Amino acid sequence: MRILVANVNTTASMTEAIAESARSAASPGTEIVGITPRFGADSCEGNFESYLAAIAVMDAITRYEEPYDAVIQAGYGEHGREGLQELLEVPVVDITEAAASTAMYLGHKYSVVTTLDRTVPLIEDRLKLAGLDARCASVRASGLGVLELESEPERAVEAIVAQAREAVERDHAEVICLGCGGMAELEEKVSAATGVPIVDGVRSAVTIAEGLVRMGLKTSKVRTYAPPRPKVVTGWPIPGSDGAR
Amino acid sequence: MRILVANVNTTASMTEAIAESARSAASPGTEIVGITPRFGADSCEGNFESYLAAIAVMDAITRYEEPYDAVIQAGYGEHGREGLQELLEVPVVDITEAAASTAMYLGHKYSVVTTLDRTVPLIEDRLKLAGLDARCASVRASGLGVLELESEPERAVEAIVAQAREAVERDHAEVICLGCGGMAELEEKVSAATGVPIVDGVRSAVTIAEGLVRMGLKTSKVRTYAPPRPKVVTGWPIPGSDGAR
Amino acid sequence: MRILVANVNTTASMTEAIAESARSAASPGTEIVGITPRFGADSCEGNFESYLAAIAVMDAITRYEEPYDAVIQAGYGEHGREGLQELLEVPVVDITEAAASTAMYLGHKYSVVTTLDRTVPLIEDRLKLAGLDARCASVRASGLGVLELESEPERAVEAIVAQAREAVERDHAEVICLGCGGMAELEEKVSAATGVPIVDGVRSAVTIAEGLVRMGLKTSKVRTYAPPRPKVVTGWPIPGSDGAR
Amino acid sequence: MRILVANVNTTASMTEAIAESARSAASPGTEIVGITPRFGADSCEGNFESYLAAIAVMDAITRYEEPYDAVIQAGYGEHGREGLQELLEVPVVDITEAAASTAMYLGHKYSVVTTLDRTVPLIEDRLKLAGLDARCASVRASGLGVLELESEPERAVEAIVAQAREAVERDHAEVICLGCGGMAELEEKVSAATGVPIVDGVRSAVTIAEGLVRMGLKTSKVRTYAPPRPKVVTGWPIPGSDGAR
Amino acid sequence: MRILVANVNTTASMTEAIAESARSAASPGTEIVGITPRFGADSCEGNFESYLAAIAVMDAITRYEEPYDAVIQAGYGEHGREGLQELLEVPVVDITEAAASTAMYLGHKYSVVTTLDRTVPLIEDRLKLAGLDARCASVRASGLGVLELESEPERAVEAIVAQAREAVERDHAEVICLGCGGMAELEEKVSAATGVPIVDGVRSAVTIAEGLVRMGLKTSKVRTYAPPRPKVVTGWPIPGSDGAR
Amino acid sequence: MRILVANVNTTASMTEAIAESARSAASPGTEIVGITPRFGADSCEGNFESYLAAIAVMDAITRYEEPYDAVIQAGYGEHGREGLQELLEVPVVDITEAAASTAMYLGHKYSVVTTLDRTVPLIEDRLKLAGLDARCASVRASGLGVLELESEPERAVEAIVAQAREAVERDHAEVICLGCGGMAELEEKVSAATGVPIVDGVRSAVTIAEGLVRMGLKTSKVRTYAPPRPKVVTGWPIPGSDGAR
Repeated sequence: MRILVANVNTTASMTEAIAESARSAASPGTEIVGITPRFGADSCEGNFESYLAAIAVMDAITRYEEPYDAVIQAGYGEHGREGLQELLEVPVVDITEAAASTAMYLGHKYSVVTTLDRTVPLIEDRLKLAGLDARCASVRASGLGVLELESEPERAVEAIVAQAREAVERDHAEVICLGCGGMAELEEKVSAATGVPIVDGVRSAVTIAEGLVRMGLKTSKVRTYAPPRPKVVTGWPIPGSDGAR
Repeated sequence: MRILVANVNTTASMTEAIAESARSAASPGTEIVGITPRFGADSCEGNFESYLAAIAVMDAITRYEEPYDAVIQAGYGEHGREGLQELLEVPVVDITEAAASTAMYLGHKYSVVTTLDRTVPLIEDRLKLAGLDARCASVRASGLGVLELESEPERAVEAIVAQAREAVERDHAEVICLGCGGMAELEEKVSAATGVPIVDGVRSAVTIAEGLVRMGLKTSKVRTYAPPRPKVVTGWPIPGSDGAR
Repeated sequence: MRILVANVNTTASMTEAIAESARSAASPGTEIVGITPRFGADSCEGNFESYLAAIAVMDAITRYEEPYDAVIQAGYGEHGREGLQELLEVPVVDITEAAASTAMYLGHKYSVVTTLDRTVPLIEDRLKLAGLDARCASVRASGLGVLELESEPERAVEAIVAQAREAVERDHAEVICLGCGGMAELEEKVSAATGVPIVDGVRSAVTIAEGLVRMGLKTSKVRTYAPPRPKVVTGWPIPGSDGAR
Repeated sequence: MRILVANVNTTASMTEAIAESARSAASPGTEIVGITPRFGADSCEGNFESYLAAIAVMDAITRYEEPYDAVIQAGYGEHGREGLQELLEVPVVDITEAAASTAMYLGHKYSVVTTLDRTVPLIEDRLKLAGLDARCASVRASGLGVLELESEPERAVEAIVAQAREAVERDHAEVICLGCGGMAELEEKVSAATGVPIVDGVRSAVTIAEGLVRMGLKTSKVRTYAPPRPKVVTGWPIPGSDGAR
Repeated sequence: MRILVANVNTTASMTEAIAESARSAASPGTEIVGITPRFGADSCEGNFESYLAAIAVMDAITRYEEPYDAVIQAGYGEHGREGLQELLEVPVVDITEAAASTAMYLGHKYSVVTTLDRTVPLIEDRLKLAGLDARCASVRASGLGVLELESEPERAVEAIVAQAREAVERDHAEVICLGCGGMAELEEKVSAATGVPIVDGVRSAVTIAEGLVRMGLKTSKVRTYAPPRPKVVTGWPIPGSDGAR
Repeated sequence: MRILVANVNTTASMTEAIAESARSAASPGTEIVGITPRFGADSCEGNFESYLAAIAVMDAITRYEEPYDAVIQAGYGEHGREGLQELLEVPVVDITEAAASTAMYLGHKYSVVTTLDRTVPLIEDRLKLAGLDARCASVRASGLGVLELESEPERAVEAIVAQAREAVERDHAEVICLGCGGMAELEEKVSAATGVPIVDGVRSAVTIAEGLVRMGLKTSKVRTYAPPRPKVVTGWPIPGSDGAR
């Protein structure tokens, strides 16, 4: 089984970190392929960048020419999953939703700890649309940007642990979701510090995608995610910014 | 006062129809400028096309070089309003929301009558995110595509009137929103046939945008719609499909 | 175009302040007429006074003998809008709703800062019934009575700014609605102190009412707001307390 | 124990019917006093009449000079309960809420069958504000006016039974609330025809009021229902329409 | 009239305290019979114990051989009410729901103060299922176990008063429900200390059950609470742990 | 990895069918052990039977003496998952929730098709408590009892297909969950007849449980699912009805 894991930003090292994290949760025999968009922001921290990522991920996935069985959209709070579902038949799993649905099997309420405060409403909105917000105790921000998580790992752990503790003590969360594609490696440290299960979206998405594939389930095509109607689409695929086109 | 009205598809004749409709609701002294995206689908009827439109509208608006006071996103159920709000300081009004908030001043419950069944969930989702769904009785589809509204006006009226009647009789709607940027000219006929107020999103958006400008109100920049952080963004602006870039 | 702006209390100086505020948002050519009820409390700060105001405003509006195009109910959190909608064909706009629907175009969440703590539940209830509560972060009280806003303007600004800051910092509001008909003149000061857009209900209601009139929209009469059935009504109009009857 | 049961309309024969119904549910030793407003409509079927009733009931109750232990507001869907709670210390029970909270002890979902279609939104709104709507399957209208229930009892039973059956079969109601102060005597017939428990609001309110009194419970005065602040109130009490004042 | 009041734990002294409390709210002529389960935990503070109590109460009630008119399930937050409703025709009243529906007649919002933090989610879940959560401001824990309430009454009052005050001041509760079957005797002290009405679930349930009986209302049998279908049930009644069977 | 799959009824042939279905979704190396309760009903179709099953499953699981990695509660709409989570450290997955969370990855809305109408409210309640109801279009009943599914497979397919079609056409479901532990083998036939993905709860639960185990995630023990406190529990384990005790 081959699963494409699409990073939403253009930072290749982050794609690799995400893919590595995905591999750590994959079954034997599952191949994980990391996909980096050809265009967009080097980190996604807002609506403009998120919408650009939505298109960039669709662009990158539809350019991928080998067969595959499922796609993971590895942006926490980012847009685009519904578009991929229209374009593809294989299952598409969004990590924001994967983390939430996984956390809900482990405790009565869960919280998300993410990067910047400005991304909190995006995550809240994605959870609301997904219908996975009823047991969300809070979405909290560590105050660190996406790239700072990589460059300052110790400060990241500290800031995330602080918010995770608040989530448990004040918001009555019993499980913490790490709200960023690049936070996976922090899992163990935050769990040790808080005593609650820590859920990583990418790893969760891998197990869910594998399950869907194993059960032979595909995206429903009867209504919302029917293939786009045949029509004139100008400027798509997006002309290459990689020089090749 | 100058208001940009952004069509979400690439059909220039539809931009003109939308702009004309906008003008019919504008105050004296308000200039309406219709904007057609440089790329995207010739009609938006699904998530892929909607996400592409989100980017195409941002592209088109940020390329516009004259001063303006407000922007109207004239796609019913389409994505992108939040991205524009980040990129701009002037108010941005989405027609899906404008129709709903206007309808809520006229009756206890409202319904939306839109084009294809597959676009119903997009509209429902936008209303839910906007927090304007509590008094929405139903979103109904006429079964006609966006472009058929233009090419087959008589059939369009008939199909829309049929659904509007169902909305009033079965769903207890007291007001009908016409759920498509290109439906404005049907207003009178549907109203005559159903006896309830008919709300057009574009016209509503014009009055709301004018009001915001007149009160000197702009998008809040403290959190969700703060300007994008300075960072490396590859491939933006989207390389021209018009040959000029 | 003539718009009646109905104060909900019997304090004529407040009616004048409200009308002045309304005029500051009106288009050229719009005439604003302030209406003071003939009976009721000199300030509305609770349910009994609010219900009395509902009837007093209906009494005052139905006694007005000149033609007019729209009515604004200028009580924040007060009852009565639905009754006016039954009695009239022209649009009726409640300032509690006008402020909320306007704020929702400017930020992801809004808060209301009002007068006394006891009026908070009235405002919450009006927003819930109007279906405009989903994006309301909080309704906060400054602790000052309606008439103290007029008599102690400096203390008023201070108390309101303090609550507005809490709303932004703790409740994540991105826009503040000033929750009282008599707060309009504080707009500028509170905005300067908090850095977020400040929405005034009266001014918002004027722009919305003008828009509805310009679009030719009137209250739907098919169900909830159908005219009262012909029947025996005793003691209405309310016998005059002004000595004239 | 003495309980005042306030009719919301001016039809004295209906007050008597309501009081009689109340007596049939009262404990030995409970005195039921029917109260007819001095002004208002001879039947309440809309917002204007309901708001007028709110004031008329407050007027009538505050004029009552003997001691009493509780008040029942016997209008189904009518306004005013919150105002009475401010003016009084003894418990106030609204029959719309009493029927709903009683029905919820008897089945998983309940429906309300009321008079005219135009009163349905009033009842829905009262249930929503009361927080008793989550298990309401539907509010259905028989199409008969309040006074027709009295004048055409056979047709009334037929129309109400028809709607009650629909509620059970289509909306999955397991209990029916009779949604009108004057429907009490139909209880037995509708129950026999549908096989589900029929709840009458007036009778339910009596048992709830008696319970509150027996437990020594009174309306909380710390916030929403604190007594009105001392202030100038013009025209209250409402000048007499009965000639005596 | 005879009402069975079922304790959910095996502590007979607590059954007696509950029955005594029930008697203090009962009408003359109502006989209260306390029922102690034959098996289960000596106090219920979690899901396992609550599920066991559900069965133990059904066991105890169905073994009771005298006639009776209603049953009260006297466990705050415990499971089982729906099962009793299937097995019996007489009304079944759960004290968690009785306290909530009673509190809602006395103030705009209510809070529950219960024993251990771990039981808070059980109570929240019961209120959500009962559709009585919309006006619940908070469920707070005193941190004392069920049996400590009995053994350390002074500490109990102190801890409960502290939480009740927080509920009023921070959560804007206007009424407090004592969230435990064994808390009834604290009513007066907590009320004196907080100035808000204190609602006891057992006493409330008695008045509600009496009212249902007086109105001749029984559990609806058309759907959710129809009697169990005839089938093979092994091990029921639960074989006696009391040696006698 | 070993997963216990607990049937909720005492019908051993159904346990075997469930286990077989579970095996068909399991990864290589996963051992599925079917568990049949020692007591309870031979099919669960209501609250009494469901509560009894809750205890019977806890009894059966805690008697199982070999090591295992996860537990699946294979009753659609049945109680008990929360109790197991307290008693165990390994993950516990309820099939009602597993089907719902799986369906939500495949379409915008899902419906459940279950057995008897009387079990619909149980399923609705479980989904509401699990916070997985927001995207549930409907829960529909085929009208067939649990055991009839086994004895009359052809009639079962027909009845289920009929309801699934209604769910798709009227309720706008895009995915169907088969709402019964014993429906797994119908999957293919219903899918062929309706054209939408069919989700089986048992199979879904296996993939979710495997994923949780592979990620090393266990039930959070900080609050709701902390182990029962040490206390006197009478009559537990339930004395044997199998003659051995």
